[in-house]
Amino acid sequence: MRVLVVMGSDSDWPTMREAARVLRDFGVEYEVRVCSAHRTPEAAAALARGAREAGFGVIIAGAGMAAHLPGVVAAYTTLPVIGVPLRGGIGDGVDALYSIVQMPPGIPVACVGVGAARNAALLALEILSLSREDLRERLEAYRKDMARKVAEKDERVRGEALD
Amino acid sequence: MRVLVVMGSDSDWPTMREAARVLRDFGVEYEVRVCSAHRTPEAAAALARGAREAGFGVIIAGAGMAAHLPGVVAAYTTLPVIGVPLRGGIGDGVDALYSIVQMPPGIPVACVGVGAARNAALLALEILSLSREDLRERLEAYRKDMARKVAEKDERVRGEALD
Amino acid sequence: MRVLVVMGSDSDWPTMREAARVLRDFGVEYEVRVCSAHRTPEAAAALARGAREAGFGVIIAGAGMAAHLPGVVAAYTTLPVIGVPLRGGIGDGVDALYSIVQMPPGIPVACVGVGAARNAALLALEILSLSREDLRERLEAYRKDMARKVAEKDERVRGEALD
Amino acid sequence: MRVLVVMGSDSDWPTMREAARVLRDFGVEYEVRVCSAHRTPEAAAALARGAREAGFGVIIAGAGMAAHLPGVVAAYTTLPVIGVPLRGGIGDGVDALYSIVQMPPGIPVACVGVGAARNAALLALEILSLSREDLRERLEAYRKDMARKVAEKDERVRGEALD
Amino acid sequence: MRVLVVMGSDSDWPTMREAARVLRDFGVEYEVRVCSAHRTPEAAAALARGAREAGFGVIIAGAGMAAHLPGVVAAYTTLPVIGVPLRGGIGDGVDALYSIVQMPPGIPVACVGVGAARNAALLALEILSLSREDLRERLEAYRKDMARKVAEKDERVRGEALD
Amino acid sequence: MRVLVVMGSDSDWPTMREAARVLRDFGVEYEVRVCSAHRTPEAAAALARGAREAGFGVIIAGAGMAAHLPGVVAAYTTLPVIGVPLRGGIGDGVDALYSIVQMPPGIPVACVGVGAARNAALLALEILSLSREDLRERLEAYRKDMARKVAEKDERVRGEALD
Amino acid sequence: MRVLVVMGSDSDWPTMREAARVLRDFGVEYEVRVCSAHRTPEAAAALARGAREAGFGVIIAGAGMAAHLPGVVAAYTTLPVIGVPLRGGIGDGVDALYSIVQMPPGIPVACVGVGAARNAALLALEILSLSREDLRERLEAYRKDMARKVAEKDERVRGEALD
Amino acid sequence: MRVLVVMGSDSDWPTMREAARVLRDFGVEYEVRVCSAHRTPEAAAALARGAREAGFGVIIAGAGMAAHLPGVVAAYTTLPVIGVPLRGGIGDGVDALYSIVQMPPGIPVACVGVGAARNAALLALEILSLSREDLRERLEAYRKDMARKVAEKDERVRGEALD
Repeated sequence: MRVLVVMGSDSDWPTMREAARVLRDFGVEYEVRVCSAHRTPEAAAALARGAREAGFGVIIAGAGMAAHLPGVVAAYTTLPVIGVPLRGGIGDGVDALYSIVQMPPGIPVACVGVGAARNAALLALEILSLSREDLRERLEAYRKDMARKVAEKDERVRGEALD
Repeated sequence: MRVLVVMGSDSDWPTMREAARVLRDFGVEYEVRVCSAHRTPEAAAALARGAREAGFGVIIAGAGMAAHLPGVVAAYTTLPVIGVPLRGGIGDGVDALYSIVQMPPGIPVACVGVGAARNAALLALEILSLSREDLRERLEAYRKDMARKVAEKDERVRGEALD
Repeated sequence: MRVLVVMGSDSDWPTMREAARVLRDFGVEYEVRVCSAHRTPEAAAALARGAREAGFGVIIAGAGMAAHLPGVVAAYTTLPVIGVPLRGGIGDGVDALYSIVQMPPGIPVACVGVGAARNAALLALEILSLSREDLRERLEAYRKDMARKVAEKDERVRGEALD
Repeated sequence: MRVLVVMGSDSDWPTMREAARVLRDFGVEYEVRVCSAHRTPEAAAALARGAREAGFGVIIAGAGMAAHLPGVVAAYTTLPVIGVPLRGGIGDGVDALYSIVQMPPGIPVACVGVGAARNAALLALEILSLSREDLRERLEAYRKDMARKVAEKDERVRGEALD
Repeated sequence: MRVLVVMGSDSDWPTMREAARVLRDFGVEYEVRVCSAHRTPEAAAALARGAREAGFGVIIAGAGMAAHLPGVVAAYTTLPVIGVPLRGGIGDGVDALYSIVQMPPGIPVACVGVGAARNAALLALEILSLSREDLRERLEAYRKDMARKVAEKDERVRGEALD
Repeated sequence: MRVLVVMGSDSDWPTMREAARVLRDFGVEYEVRVCSAHRTPEAAAALARGAREAGFGVIIAGAGMAAHLPGVVAAYTTLPVIGVPLRGGIGDGVDALYSIVQMPPGIPVACVGVGAARNAALLALEILSLSREDLRERLEAYRKDMARKVAEKDERVRGEALD
Repeated sequence: MRVLVVMGSDSDWPTMREAARVLRDFGVEYEVRVCSAHRTPEAAAALARGAREAGFGVIIAGAGMAAHLPGVVAAYTTLPVIGVPLRGGIGDGVDALYSIVQMPPGIPVACVGVGAARNAALLALEILSLSREDLRERLEAYRKDMARKVAEKDERVRGEALD
Repeated sequence: MRVLVVMGSDSDWPTMREAARVLRDFGVEYEVRVCSAHRTPEAAAALARGAREAGFGVIIAGAGMAAHLPGVVAAYTTLPVIGVPLRGGIGDGVDALYSIVQMPPGIPVACVGVGAARNAALLALEILSLSREDLRERLEAYRKDMARKVAEKDERVRGEALD
């Protein structure tokens, strides 16, 4: 199963690219699309409606301000939808966070942190790992790698002199 | 031209009814509809897309939490859309306010205060008054009436004794 | 009908100019005025009071911080008033947003997003389009143009390589 | 010099009455008025414009939500204006607080806490005490009385048994 | 695959029970556990560490205030973890929302709305539906049922008289 | 060493009593005092200045709204001061939290959660446990007891039937 | 009567200097002092306690973060105290605003906007104008001058071309 | 007794180093460690669990965003734990503040201001001063030094000319 990465504008790409990179590094196919809940609502609806048939397993949707894209996408599919609130509006992302996370009963969106495209991709990988043993192993290796890096930082900071 | 009053759930009706009452009292035709940006997105899209042809001049959309309905409606019409954020979520309406007011460039929504269905209706009437002289007169009479009531309250409070 | 664009200070002009540009591009006449709810309250009142007679159909008022200008203008007219909260105060516009949107029952203001002068102008055009078929057509063309640009961005992002 | 107590609606009276009581108890003359920045803007302007000539030395203005009354009053007088944000809107008074305190440079309003009508009156008394020795003495007695009450509470709590 | 529902205290049960009910109604096995990130951190760690081996496919974790449970659980597993912020603290859930959603890069949590246990369960079902065709069908039936109910409410409200 | 529990008013006692109870249950001597940063500033200063000599090892200070008491106390002593923000003001304790936690460099206050008098007492006990082996043991027993209760709740919830 | 301008640190001077300049321009004597509610609490108390005898009529106190200085000063005097919340902490001044404005009943502080040292000085001048006819005239001239500047800006903006 | 300074990443070091410097200047031994509540949860648990035996008396834990590290550490020790919320997330530290301060009953964390590593160290010193007379003296000297610096600033500002 592939991952669909959608965003409302190409100005979101510098943040959302991080998700694409993680997916590529884990060897998971993905497709990147720009479509807008407000400027191309029909394209967004069509994309979401056909996503499962098109072989997607998870949808990652990034949006800022009155961030409706994840919710609109979720309204047209029963695939898991991960929303990434983007910086730029009130409280530098608080508005997008509320717009994404406070979905009405019945239509869930899985919200990650403000600007957290990397975590959105990792969450998608965790979901796909339920039926792909290889991904599970890679995720565990990724965790070990992170732990190793923390241990290295620990070494470095312990050895650092104060001025 | 008529006014379309939409809301995401009949639980919004006790608040939104206030808008209907104002419209009725001013002698403006309206239609009340329940449709949801997330549960019936196609019905919402169809309703908005056909609104101008159906003789509507303004759309009032009430929604709570991740309040997408006004934005979804605005995405499918070039009629003026008035959004009413409803109480109930984070900060008792702050989430809905942000979801409605922070629209992306190109697709405006006219946001009123949290729970302010009455003001939404008055704003609709002001819009319609541009081509209906009778509404202008009624609005001015309504203002005078409000002013008179304030003056009466002024009288009453001035005459009140402290305990 | 013309559109009146008012702001409290010429320091608001770089933001509000965006509204003027949109109106010009749509071929709608407008007038730009600086007047202050607090420093020139009588000028603001006079401007609002005479706006309908002067041939205005909509008023766009931009203001920051304790943004009273839209509300003061609305108090003196039954024309639709669109408020634009401007960045700069607490929460970089949250204070202005609350000051504009939370109007008391009876005197509505149509609030748009923080700094959203462009959307204020588009909302004004939607209002005027109720009696101007040409504006309706232009608005629909504008929407199509936006959709086309999103589709172009979609193309571009899909073709972009990750580094 | 007298104190003018204004509020936008008689629904504010239960809170603002507290200010009137304090003024009465300190033997300072006051007048209570209801007028609205939005519903009776001309009455509000006239009241403020004539306040100094009418013998007022301080104006206390209470308002909720997009609380413009204190600012509108301040725009029409050079008397000190004390604003009392009232509960009821977003964040239960946060909106009113921002609307009152974030005034533009040149037109100050002295803001007190949310619902703090009593403190508004005491602040007015402190201002008047600059030219009234008797008020100064009463204020100092009032402080001593408060201190005595705290000491009594101290006694009481120290003697209380835990259950 | 089963779903693990954990919460920090049995006082969270009245909210989290909603998730259990949805899972039961969809015919998905689940287990409910109480363990605390702070009071029984080792039990929480052990539960999360062994979850995949124990046959769980998704973990739903509810927590209030400084809601660490979802993050602690996520730290010990590569299964998808859904966090449910619960009401009760600052801003009635804002603190829990921030504690859950703002995870550091590398360890994602899928956050749903404040108190949204039902949506957490539906999100879990969407995830499981990737490898269970029957769940996909049930989810689509559930959506249709919701749409039907909205349509019924639409009927009811349209027929309702104003008083 | 004893613990000093201070609060600004006896209306804070129902919350702060929780701290007293914990101290009593752990067999640590304490004294409860009411004094106010604003109404009896000299008493507050004197109490703090003499606290170390009077045999206190930790001070717990509870305060609401513009909660200055913990900071004022901290200004007059080098004993550790624990601040408890109390509910009741803006955001139901957010104002008190900010007033207590955002101390300037040089004068620390140890802030606990809104209304968290129990945790304030436990923190005081942890501090005192550095030189009292018996307290350390009691704290560890307390933790075990909490863990046992969580385990009991776990049992109970697992056995509960859904309706 | 003179005006006392106090601040917690000389890093506040760039903002507070604005108050000093206004006072100088209006020909009112003032004294500038640095003293800290937390680092030199006794100096702050002594300064406030002796302020009225020293010929001061108003105190302006600027402070950031857990801004206690205005409240501490107010606790030791019955002179009107004007608090200026300064930028720099949470929400860039929101913490200071709450710490200053949310005073307990009995001890008022007149709060102005975040960073609004100029308005603090103007408020002080309004207070002093109650017994100084010359200040009243200057304040009115100042208002006229502001209005004239707004009118000039109005001219300028009206004449500006769009690009 | 030594002080343990932990942080989740070496990117926190520039802020947390301030704590190390203060401890060094007061002649108190400390150890600096990097470990993460989410990336190396077992290392964090082990570090906290063994801290008292390793001769630590206080733990200072800095963390940003969903700042779980102080709470996780507190869950594994009965030593006093001081949490330092770090800038960078929503509201530039508000999310970290809430995540640290809103701990559940039973497991306290002593929270200081956003970025306040210096105050965290001073609080640790105050705690250690209960059994180290020399630290008490140094803390009092430090306070006197701060007071002297404020007095110097007072001199400097009083002598400064306005431009």
